[in-house]
Amino acid sequence: MIDHRGPEFAALFRGIRAKLKAFFQTQNEVLILTASGTGGLEAAVVNVLSPGNRVLAVTCGYFGDRFADCAKSYGAEVIRLEFPWGTAADPEAVERELKKWPDIRTVLVTHNETSTGVTNDIKAISQVVKANSQALLLVDAISSIPAIELPMDQWGLDVVIAGSQKAWMIPPGLSMVAVSQRAWEANAVAKMPRFYFDLKAHLTMAQKDQTPATPAVSLFYALETGLDLLEQEGHSNVIARHRRIGQLCRQGVRELGLEILPDEAHASNTVTAVKIPAGVDGGVLVKMLREEHKVVVGGGPGPLHGKIIRIGHLGFVSEQDIAEVVDAIAKSLSKLRGSVPAGPSKGRAGR
Amino acid sequence: MIDHRGPEFAALFRGIRAKLKAFFQTQNEVLILTASGTGGLEAAVVNVLSPGNRVLAVTCGYFGDRFADCAKSYGAEVIRLEFPWGTAADPEAVERELKKWPDIRTVLVTHNETSTGVTNDIKAISQVVKANSQALLLVDAISSIPAIELPMDQWGLDVVIAGSQKAWMIPPGLSMVAVSQRAWEANAVAKMPRFYFDLKAHLTMAQKDQTPATPAVSLFYALETGLDLLEQEGHSNVIARHRRIGQLCRQGVRELGLEILPDEAHASNTVTAVKIPAGVDGGVLVKMLREEHKVVVGGGPGPLHGKIIRIGHLGFVSEQDIAEVVDAIAKSLSKLRGSVPAGPSKGRAGR
Repeated sequence: MIDHRGPEFAALFRGIRAKLKAFFQTQNEVLILTASGTGGLEAAVVNVLSPGNRVLAVTCGYFGDRFADCAKSYGAEVIRLEFPWGTAADPEAVERELKKWPDIRTVLVTHNETSTGVTNDIKAISQVVKANSQALLLVDAISSIPAIELPMDQWGLDVVIAGSQKAWMIPPGLSMVAVSQRAWEANAVAKMPRFYFDLKAHLTMAQKDQTPATPAVSLFYALETGLDLLEQEGHSNVIARHRRIGQLCRQGVRELGLEILPDEAHASNTVTAVKIPAGVDGGVLVKMLREEHKVVVGGGPGPLHGKIIRIGHLGFVSEQDIAEVVDAIAKSLSKLRGSVPAGPSKGRAGR
Repeated sequence: MIDHRGPEFAALFRGIRAKLKAFFQTQNEVLILTASGTGGLEAAVVNVLSPGNRVLAVTCGYFGDRFADCAKSYGAEVIRLEFPWGTAADPEAVERELKKWPDIRTVLVTHNETSTGVTNDIKAISQVVKANSQALLLVDAISSIPAIELPMDQWGLDVVIAGSQKAWMIPPGLSMVAVSQRAWEANAVAKMPRFYFDLKAHLTMAQKDQTPATPAVSLFYALETGLDLLEQEGHSNVIARHRRIGQLCRQGVRELGLEILPDEAHASNTVTAVKIPAGVDGGVLVKMLREEHKVVVGGGPGPLHGKIIRIGHLGFVSEQDIAEVVDAIAKSLSKLRGSVPAGPSKGRAGR
């Protein structure tokens, strides 16, 4: 460990912030919180809002609900625009809500809904928000950037939140938060209480290449390495690789005769939600994949419990990994159903 | 990394919590936040208080002020009982304030004030609080436990906050928070807003061996190792080693003709604040120690800027380390004053 008030940390922190700006595609400062992504969501909310402010929370899954719940906890008047789990947010419905509630100050939306494998069309949502309101747009991009296209400045986003353990390829524990000029203006009058997540304090200290409280130094080292790897690959190549991997995963799953939860236009390139066939227990499948094939997949959260599995494929993931996972699913389903797999086996046996 | 909702993490988390309870000397549950110590201070405050509650903040330095500032940010009516930097909190003065303000609901105090090298007498303060009020006692023990004695249950403390990067000997990024039954009762009616730091949510999830949001998994591995090392040494031996190291450091510094900032009765065994002799620039001394001797010490915060240096000696520290630091200070002062050191040189040259 190094002194987080010393010159070595200052150089490390300065270098990381510059690189993050490139991947957020922004001229805005990107701040780094020692917290998981949920801490970043809280920071976004409490730094631009006052209790009683009306907020439109666009949700289509567990993490959209979490963003909304956070705003509600701090006293926002939250209007929830809910879409069925597995579907994407409809920009036209967002437009109708904005027209219905002209005092909406802030819109919360999840870019990539990890719980359902859905990627929302943030570009279209941002256009609708700008055309129909003065509202700030806060985007949970935890499981999207830098793996899925999200040019902050070009799309006019106000706060974008990332999480270290996702496509940055490092352990959890840091949340990166980029803040637009309009969001800083809102921050100047925002009255929600904040201390650890006070972004103005973070900005002031970042200008001295420090953080207000002790940062998770080991994760900063990791982030520097992750950013170097991403830079070497090139951002557009990172996005293209995730698109290729996502398509490969969906194709492999479909060849087993299984269905993807969202429609193809909104299927995520970082996580694939697969419907469990009738007669198979989702929990048993997850356990068998882990124990017999060393393949770790997620189960279905909330209302999707037992009904889907979720295959994560963001960060350091190759085509071969996907082939192995699909093969393990084929073998496990075959065993569970006491029959041969419905589709061709891909790749070699589970790693 | 492992799935933080899977069985490996559950076993890791369960084992860590059991060991933490032993070092906190408590039967209470110890929760683990992915945040630095300041996040733990915020969690303590917002989980037991409502806006408008009167709080007594006992402060004698930078971190006492931070605890008070946090409570104020969330709307507490904070009465500050301030002691001069470098001195300890006087339990009799605490008693007078409690008698003056019978509606004080909560007392905030720093066990080991890192900014001034002072250890407060928490046992005496707790006795005074219990004898004169029903107030909860919240203790910032970030730079003390497990290196300095603080038996939570025996002394009747209500919330105790620790930080991973201190005597636990691991990188920063986790804050451990132990919560008494009385504090949970206060929690049930506490109205300060909270989401990421909602300790009830942490408790509920801990009972399933999980955390509400993604934990900093790599630091949990580190914590397990740190706890194993501490267990092998034995808690009373850890405390005795820090007492020995602290005394050795103060003795070495005094032999150079320098003064310790606090009196011996309240001098910390984890950090020693040394007064800089007249005519020496504290900033230059810190820089020379770092650049010429590879010895990293802290400068003086706030009003002590340039007036003290702070030698950290907690966690993985040996007698030899102290000898080297004292020697480096002797050589640096000699060079800065253009004279021979005032006291005998100890140990070998700076590492």
